[in-house]
Amino acid sequence: MVAQSLIEGLKQRRNKLAQAVAQPVILWSGRGVGRNFPANKLAFRASSHFLYFAGIPIDNAAVRMEDGKLELFMDNPPPQATLWHGETPQREEIGAIIGADRVYPLAELSQKTKDAATIAVQESTTYQEQCRLLDRSVAFSDRLKDLDLELAKAVVKLRSQHDPLALQELRQAAAVSVEAHKAGMAATKHSTTEAQIRGAMEGVIIAHNMCCAYNSIVTVHGEVLHNETYSNKLQPQDLLLADVGAETPNGWAADITRTWAVSGKFSSTQKDLYEIVLAAHDRCIAQMRPGVEYQEIHLLAAGVIAEGLVDLGILKGKPQDLVATDAHALFFPHGVGHLLGLDVHDMEDLGDIAGYEPGRTRSDRFGLGYLRLNRPLQSGMLVTIEPGFYQVPAILSDSNFRAKYQDVVDWERLAQFGDVKGIRIEDDVLITDSGTEVLTAQLPTKVAEIEALVL
Amino acid sequence: MVAQSLIEGLKQRRNKLAQAVAQPVILWSGRGVGRNFPANKLAFRASSHFLYFAGIPIDNAAVRMEDGKLELFMDNPPPQATLWHGETPQREEIGAIIGADRVYPLAELSQKTKDAATIAVQESTTYQEQCRLLDRSVAFSDRLKDLDLELAKAVVKLRSQHDPLALQELRQAAAVSVEAHKAGMAATKHSTTEAQIRGAMEGVIIAHNMCCAYNSIVTVHGEVLHNETYSNKLQPQDLLLADVGAETPNGWAADITRTWAVSGKFSSTQKDLYEIVLAAHDRCIAQMRPGVEYQEIHLLAAGVIAEGLVDLGILKGKPQDLVATDAHALFFPHGVGHLLGLDVHDMEDLGDIAGYEPGRTRSDRFGLGYLRLNRPLQSGMLVTIEPGFYQVPAILSDSNFRAKYQDVVDWERLAQFGDVKGIRIEDDVLITDSGTEVLTAQLPTKVAEIEALVL
Repeated sequence: MVAQSLIEGLKQRRNKLAQAVAQPVILWSGRGVGRNFPANKLAFRASSHFLYFAGIPIDNAAVRMEDGKLELFMDNPPPQATLWHGETPQREEIGAIIGADRVYPLAELSQKTKDAATIAVQESTTYQEQCRLLDRSVAFSDRLKDLDLELAKAVVKLRSQHDPLALQELRQAAAVSVEAHKAGMAATKHSTTEAQIRGAMEGVIIAHNMCCAYNSIVTVHGEVLHNETYSNKLQPQDLLLADVGAETPNGWAADITRTWAVSGKFSSTQKDLYEIVLAAHDRCIAQMRPGVEYQEIHLLAAGVIAEGLVDLGILKGKPQDLVATDAHALFFPHGVGHLLGLDVHDMEDLGDIAGYEPGRTRSDRFGLGYLRLNRPLQSGMLVTIEPGFYQVPAILSDSNFRAKYQDVVDWERLAQFGDVKGIRIEDDVLITDSGTEVLTAQLPTKVAEIEALVL
Repeated sequence: MVAQSLIEGLKQRRNKLAQAVAQPVILWSGRGVGRNFPANKLAFRASSHFLYFAGIPIDNAAVRMEDGKLELFMDNPPPQATLWHGETPQREEIGAIIGADRVYPLAELSQKTKDAATIAVQESTTYQEQCRLLDRSVAFSDRLKDLDLELAKAVVKLRSQHDPLALQELRQAAAVSVEAHKAGMAATKHSTTEAQIRGAMEGVIIAHNMCCAYNSIVTVHGEVLHNETYSNKLQPQDLLLADVGAETPNGWAADITRTWAVSGKFSSTQKDLYEIVLAAHDRCIAQMRPGVEYQEIHLLAAGVIAEGLVDLGILKGKPQDLVATDAHALFFPHGVGHLLGLDVHDMEDLGDIAGYEPGRTRSDRFGLGYLRLNRPLQSGMLVTIEPGFYQVPAILSDSNFRAKYQDVVDWERLAQFGDVKGIRIEDDVLITDSGTEVLTAQLPTKVAEIEALVL
């Protein structure tokens, strides 16, 4: 992959947008939000759609694009800001960095909003400004229509097929995330709490001048799917599940999960279930190529997991029947993955416009409803593959589930696997013309290799 | 200091509030803010005033206090949240933890807002809800009036004198911050960038299940006072300035700055200036006790720095004359410190209501205008002491400044100190009945001790 210059790459994006959308397009970056008082700002994160076309984060700015040209609107910092923040680049310099065709103070944007399409920014003060300047309500998520819906579809098309500029960033995020996971594994033997392993992992991300793409999950309770506390003590018999990903300064994400034994060595029951999840992971990736439906990959993971659980005696019946009745979802209740790019769930601010092919909607099925992506794969698409096995009390103790699946689960056999609360193995998979490239492949998945990194 | 139970401590605060404010008081916590899409939440930080009386962070909650009683308003998570977030405590359990007298769903708050005083919450969606429920505009900062101003003054009185419950938390934040700084010093010899040292420091804070109380400053350009980039490479002749503080899970902050030599050994010029800043730091702390005006402490720091710079031949004249004409502020342009508590600049959301004694306002003087605290010290108050020396281009190259101070600066002598860009030494000082207790005293300030931690 040849490195692409920022300006050249951005201009290609703007030209492609112009081919798809005739109207002017205005995108806002948003502003830094105060934490406990206005001057104590949370680290600023520009809107992803802004970042895609502007390339770099600029606090409180907007870009207006038309016919492939980009106008940047932002205010220069007041002169006294130099004392506190040093020499900061002025509007013209930033415009030159990103290849803007013209630059203006923000106030001039109000003259140029006629007939413009936009996408709602998440940060609420800017969102109100956006509605005020466009003199209309700007809809969120699945409620987009007209001009804005047309723009959203065009942006989805662009952002779904990563260009060389995006891939440079995504590879950097992946490489640093791999290092963070290795540091977490290495820190385990000296750690007594989840927080200590998290500190080792996020410390690596910060040391590379990146931030976390999402709130890390670092827990011995992997069965709590979005566990965001870190206060549990580590016990030697625990598995630790770490779902941690870095984000580059320009906003591009990685998303990796590994599960390892706190003691360094998996127990035989832990290893049995880990190997099933790993088989699902490997077989999914082996099947992926342009044209394959992502839902088929999800169902493949479900089938491999069902088959493995039948082999272990936890489930009873034919794997394909178990998947057809969602019995696999008792232990694998989430989707096999999602789009990845500037957002960890890429373009999820647009609801299912990005994740679901037009005409498709979420399934009512227990085993399919949480699937975030239901489109045919295409070259340049980056998705996660993240099968898992969990013993979620809210599912396995639910009387309706227990009644429905009474005959297909061997509950006594399951009880023998009590030292497995949650396992997930997640990698970032780029679809290429010839198949796939796993951007996170430098991080081992095999039991023996993971054990070697922990011990 | 005897440990105090959470409920007992919180009830004392509520009783003291009731003695000062007859009206009902409603305080909102705020909500977690989405980052690039709604489900990707930034780590939630509850409003500091809410935390003071509720004790723990609760996303999207309100407390109503009257006559020392507290009613908690919050919604239970929907049942399906258990799948993703595990068993989370319900309203009644949280009420029991914080000693609430009654608990209600949020919707019931609208029945109980009559004549209530409040303080504006920073997070904007909740702020709008706050105005809507109270059916009035809620003013920010220095524009408070009537009921809300009376409440703010009562809260300032309480929060300015830390009780045992607060001190337990503040000591924890201080202890972890001390460890973080030691880790930063120890990491220096293996680091090549600012970001790597930041990673080592923040990694320690995360490992203790805390977060940063503010955006860290970790830089070889200490002259940029609020430098929040970390991309510079370290050079052996650089000084590194690290202003990093932890915040406990319940929101209490520490704020420490140390400056050390990247090589481990200060040069003679670096040491000369460091010793001046340290003398200011030490002499300020030695003078502090209840009843002493904080502005006098600031002026003492200015005087010690002026005297030291005269001794080095950088400034010319009598120290007291130099301070009277603000010549010291060419090199020490900020205030000597600020209140510290739940906010790193405690209660700065109230403008100068907390920091400035009634009837006092900010000075127009270059050497005093940035002072954030202008009140007599009192027992239980926690303040930072953070003198510094900087060569800020925006000041030293300013033609007006150069003209005004032409005769009192020996510019040739100053040029010999080119390897000093910025030095700051900051500790957290608790005022006690008998004088002071430095909560961050476990972190050395002396050159030899700092060198030993780096080498």
